[in-house]
Amino acid sequence: MVDVCLVGTGGMMPLPQRALTCLWMEYKGHAALIDCGEGTQIALRKLDVKLCRLEVIMITHTHGDHVLGLPGLLLTLSNLGKTSPLTIYGPKGLMCVISYLCCTCPMLPFAIQVIELDEDQRFFAWSDFTIETLALKHSMPCLGYRMTLNRLPVFDPQKARKNGIPQKYWERLHRGETITDGDKTYTTADVTKGKRHPTVICYMTDTVYFDEMVNFAKGADLLINEGMYGDLENIDRMSAKGHMLFPQAAELAAKAEVKQLWLTHYSPAFTDPHAYEDSVKKMFEQTVVCDDGQRISL
Amino acid sequence: MVDVCLVGTGGMMPLPQRALTCLWMEYKGHAALIDCGEGTQIALRKLDVKLCRLEVIMITHTHGDHVLGLPGLLLTLSNLGKTSPLTIYGPKGLMCVISYLCCTCPMLPFAIQVIELDEDQRFFAWSDFTIETLALKHSMPCLGYRMTLNRLPVFDPQKARKNGIPQKYWERLHRGETITDGDKTYTTADVTKGKRHPTVICYMTDTVYFDEMVNFAKGADLLINEGMYGDLENIDRMSAKGHMLFPQAAELAAKAEVKQLWLTHYSPAFTDPHAYEDSVKKMFEQTVVCDDGQRISL
Repeated sequence: MVDVCLVGTGGMMPLPQRALTCLWMEYKGHAALIDCGEGTQIALRKLDVKLCRLEVIMITHTHGDHVLGLPGLLLTLSNLGKTSPLTIYGPKGLMCVISYLCCTCPMLPFAIQVIELDEDQRFFAWSDFTIETLALKHSMPCLGYRMTLNRLPVFDPQKARKNGIPQKYWERLHRGETITDGDKTYTTADVTKGKRHPTVICYMTDTVYFDEMVNFAKGADLLINEGMYGDLENIDRMSAKGHMLFPQAAELAAKAEVKQLWLTHYSPAFTDPHAYEDSVKKMFEQTVVCDDGQRISL
Repeated sequence: MVDVCLVGTGGMMPLPQRALTCLWMEYKGHAALIDCGEGTQIALRKLDVKLCRLEVIMITHTHGDHVLGLPGLLLTLSNLGKTSPLTIYGPKGLMCVISYLCCTCPMLPFAIQVIELDEDQRFFAWSDFTIETLALKHSMPCLGYRMTLNRLPVFDPQKARKNGIPQKYWERLHRGETITDGDKTYTTADVTKGKRHPTVICYMTDTVYFDEMVNFAKGADLLINEGMYGDLENIDRMSAKGHMLFPQAAELAAKAEVKQLWLTHYSPAFTDPHAYEDSVKKMFEQTVVCDDGQRISL
């Protein structure tokens, strides 16, 4: 299972009751973070997660509300004793911004690798995940992330016994190995009964709506998408600034046939997102108007 | 009166229940801030202060816990509609750090002036304050600030009447003007009865103790001083890192004969500063072991 927590739900600036939007994911003791605005480390501490498990940070884009918490988080990881390496992925321009922001933390006790992803490098791997990016449409280079957890096929002990597979090999075979023992060769198919649907989490902010988003989010178990306001009243102003609104996110979720939609990245002026809960659920029933700390295990 | 608020009391890293140490001062609608670590803008919002009144930021030094909130605060001031200029004072090296940190906010709608203070420039003015700096002893250039609010002499309406001063001149004379009306010349002395003691606020963090601090803080109405821990147990480790402890701050306050001492900049590992309240008050009775949001009007 992958534990997913939407640490904050704000856009533009951190507020006392609403941290900036970012996502914490933890899978078998490995952790990844998407975006890191000012105050993200404070919000993470409220959730009591193990910060030192962090291996990967994915940055959507380098606007302040998505990156200004990076140097502070790196300093805190240093103070907490982290020594294992950290990889930071993001769009073109990330390297420059990180090197500038990190002028206050030049001597960290762990290695940092910064990887700028461009059109030619749309896939990378983390733990058992395959991660794909989509170039979003914002006022600067910005990436959406589709994270696919490739799950092991369903283990079938009855089939394993019937096929006479020694129990000592069961786990390795389940994990995909082929094992030769004397004149016998065992394969994964001998102990499993069919593939399992991979778990897919898709994260998109900040962007205007465009059609390729539908395919990118297609069939996701969870789509986390920005919604700056609850209705379309501000659509011209928000589109000009490169943002989406609740109804647009709900329409995207319906078209992409995702299992669940989480709304986030609210404008500071949008004080009561829950007031739009009913109307957005009429468009896409499996919508959660998130508060900070929204969690799920998938 | 100057309103003084210790916005946060933490050192090293922001915590959910303890913001990083910084000071907000407001005087006749003008505001100044000392230090701006990550999350300072969030803590300021909790206090419901008028952020756009900010005219001056004084930085003690450029360690992350004292500056990493700057770019986010500048972006928020921009979003709040600030257009009036902002001056940022601090030690040598400040210009470089600010220009790097502000890579995410290159197009602000207000002018920023950065002034690095060195040994030759120990005084500057803000509003009715004269501000003096002291080079502290930390692991990098670091400044203490002594802020003197020069108050008008006590106005004496009886004396003004007795001297036959026209009432229309009272306010200007009180403020220091000399006025000639026909063959008569009026002076401040005609409407006042003696000088008032200036209000002095002194702010020192991060530093080891050294004797010049006593003169610098001499007679202050309020000394705000760091205390990383409540006793001297960690003195060698803390001195090596350039920090002071509660008993050292209390001794300084006693020697400098200040009226009040506020302790702040606690280590994240120092979970209950109030447990040392009695012991530190035995050394200097007018000590406040501060919590975030400690306020006074002077």
